[in-house]
Amino acid sequence: MASEFDLIARYFTRATPSARLGVGDDAALIVPQAGFELAISADMLVAGTHFLPDADPAALGHKALAVNLSDLAAMGARPRWALLSLSLPQADEAWLAQFSSGFLALAAEHGVELIGGDTTRGPLNLSVTILGEVESGRALRRDAARVGDDIWVSGELGGAALGLQQLLGERQLEAAELEACLARLHRPVPRVALGRALLGLAHAAIDISDGLLADLGHILERSRLGAEIRLAELPLAAAVVRRLPEPLALRAALAGGDDYELCFTAPAGCAAEIQAAAAAVGVPVARVGRITAEAGLKLFDAEGRSMPLREAGFDHFAGR
Amino acid sequence: MASEFDLIARYFTRATPSARLGVGDDAALIVPQAGFELAISADMLVAGTHFLPDADPAALGHKALAVNLSDLAAMGARPRWALLSLSLPQADEAWLAQFSSGFLALAAEHGVELIGGDTTRGPLNLSVTILGEVESGRALRRDAARVGDDIWVSGELGGAALGLQQLLGERQLEAAELEACLARLHRPVPRVALGRALLGLAHAAIDISDGLLADLGHILERSRLGAEIRLAELPLAAAVVRRLPEPLALRAALAGGDDYELCFTAPAGCAAEIQAAAAAVGVPVARVGRITAEAGLKLFDAEGRSMPLREAGFDHFAGR
Repeated sequence: MASEFDLIARYFTRATPSARLGVGDDAALIVPQAGFELAISADMLVAGTHFLPDADPAALGHKALAVNLSDLAAMGARPRWALLSLSLPQADEAWLAQFSSGFLALAAEHGVELIGGDTTRGPLNLSVTILGEVESGRALRRDAARVGDDIWVSGELGGAALGLQQLLGERQLEAAELEACLARLHRPVPRVALGRALLGLAHAAIDISDGLLADLGHILERSRLGAEIRLAELPLAAAVVRRLPEPLALRAALAGGDDYELCFTAPAGCAAEIQAAAAAVGVPVARVGRITAEAGLKLFDAEGRSMPLREAGFDHFAGR
Repeated sequence: MASEFDLIARYFTRATPSARLGVGDDAALIVPQAGFELAISADMLVAGTHFLPDADPAALGHKALAVNLSDLAAMGARPRWALLSLSLPQADEAWLAQFSSGFLALAAEHGVELIGGDTTRGPLNLSVTILGEVESGRALRRDAARVGDDIWVSGELGGAALGLQQLLGERQLEAAELEACLARLHRPVPRVALGRALLGLAHAAIDISDGLLADLGHILERSRLGAEIRLAELPLAAAVVRRLPEPLALRAALAGGDDYELCFTAPAGCAAEIQAAAAAVGVPVARVGRITAEAGLKLFDAEGRSMPLREAGFDHFAGR
């Protein structure tokens, strides 16, 4: 007996030519290519915690997949397959139609096939598992940073945080700024092509979901190294520069989160190659600091003066 | 900055020697064996829909993994890796300790390594993705039943449904019966070894999560065939036979669900081999019917009389 949720799950059923067996059995069957490792990650988005219950369903569908694709981007993996488990308060077909259109459009853009998942009744919860392939031994791991590496950041930082501040009523952005910042927040662009382009060039990588300091901190922790960041080199979003006084602009970039850019490290001699690889995929990149043998994270202002983390308002990170 | 949920996620961190890279990066990295297909499935359990919010956390941990292992069992796949995404109303360490002990004990029993997932705040939701390996081209698929196949069922049916009826106050079971039925309901035993033993013997298979009629119905639908079931051959749980009048006992077995036994089809000449394979892994199996070319599902009583589905109380299935 097909339940209303089984019926609705059909919104998500598309051809899966690259799977041996797609949706409709107890499990899907896939065969990764020889010479590749399979990269797997899962992220769960919950109403009231990660988004408002009345959020635009098409944007939610996009974001639920985008944050997972961003994890593969940070490994340098090529996305291949996804599973989507959905808990829904009611079987709302209009909502589902929009959600699936947002999800499947981004999936199609990245050649990702939806091969499984689950649909059930309950508080709104979007749980995605993503699978991709990366050439054996070449994934961009958090533990692979080396002393002297440059630290790079893709795209621009702080826009998503500024968009969130506007939604919370803390800012008054102009229409164009608002649109740009809300696009960052609601429809992040996973840097998949950049991650692929960095294979063999970059050492360590991570995606910036919690802010540069926290996420770079994960690289430092796993690599057991430290870092220096040149604040003047941070690629701040245009609206962030215009709308926020400098301390708050830095805070949006360093601790704002939700930008889903890549932070990566690469040998100091490779700057030209990195710039060329990034240009080839149309993503700007900025060199913002370097990896040090000495543990901890140091910030430097435009005049090269060290700015203690506490003074910059980052007590939380000072203890690393 | 590690949140309370990051800290709690450490309850689930165990060594993952069979993964190239386990928990702690943007994605885990695995390499399936050459000559095998990767079987992947996801199931989501939600408080209030699949279990009561005050359910025993150790049993929940067991069940969240067991229902996923059961999907791999139904493919004949060997479980290898799992991802667990958890949404929790609060960071309750005692609850987490018990939940993780139940989950990890069953994982260890099946050699499953937990290689990723997510932990966040929100209404209680347990979302598991399971990965296993099956010899290429040999998985037990729903679409592989053939005309003349015997239909088999493992273990016994109806116990979980009877346990649920007791929880809902509809029955008064004795202590021993109650314990057996609640164990079926709360700590289902996935038939992984049986699924593996059936490779090369069985044609189609499915796990019985929604009741025999619904789940066999999925095999018939995907194989475009029909079936006859001999009601007297159904392996009813002992408490079901003792406590329920025959029509309700049949209903518990046919439509009760949550038993997580396997239903499978195999060539008619293979009965002795099937019995031997099942005996070798210590699981009883019963031959309960056969696959027919004529579409639809027919029930027969002990005297061989056809019992219309409507008369037997299964209007929902009569239209297949």
